[in-house]
Amino acid sequence: MRVAYRVWIEHNGKAFGEGPYRLLRLIEREGSISKAASSMGLSYRKAWTILRNVEKRLGLTLLKRRIGGQSGGGSSLTPEALQLVELYERFRGDLDRSIREVFERYFSSMFSLD
Amino acid sequence: MRVAYRVWIEHNGKAFGEGPYRLLRLIEREGSISKAASSMGLSYRKAWTILRNVEKRLGLTLLKRRIGGQSGGGSSLTPEALQLVELYERFRGDLDRSIREVFERYFSSMFSLD
Repeated sequence: MRVAYRVWIEHNGKAFGEGPYRLLRLIEREGSISKAASSMGLSYRKAWTILRNVEKRLGLTLLKRRIGGQSGGGSSLTPEALQLVELYERFRGDLDRSIREVFERYFSSMFSLD
Repeated sequence: MRVAYRVWIEHNGKAFGEGPYRLLRLIEREGSISKAASSMGLSYRKAWTILRNVEKRLGLTLLKRRIGGQSGGGSSLTPEALQLVELYERFRGDLDRSIREVFERYFSSMFSLD
């Protein structure tokens, strides 16, 4: 028996959650939207739509493009995108602990928990 | 900007969450599965499936049937179903506060929160 959850930021609808978080982390690692998209099984177009939605709803610019050079350009995260990703990661870790704690407080008397 | 979430209990899959909680509360109020189901826009059969799933996954008996009498019988919650509903309700209230608190701790520096 255990607790499970999904959490996201709302601002005029779903603005940011697990999917965009993973996508941004992958873009940071791969330096490319299309590589990040394909490693999540998303089309480039779908990844782009997800990112535009986050930008519009949170009022942030997420990516800067590196043009040309040896690697033929690519994308990297803006400082505010990096901040968002890092805050979200620490938020999730802290939330995990809080939720399990609150869950145990109420349900350990009724069920045997994992 | 605000935080939103869904939470549920897992045990061999989704075992209990918002839907079954609301259904049980309505059965308690209406004294009848079919009245509760229809006020949630569910078929009797669907409500029954939801309840059987909770019973199987949590290993509880949720309902007792009152047979006959002036009202022609009906259903009410067993003590363990009542305990589940009440614990879940308090759990949700406490969790609401915790999640907002953790969210504010991380994101109030980046966004203006509701």
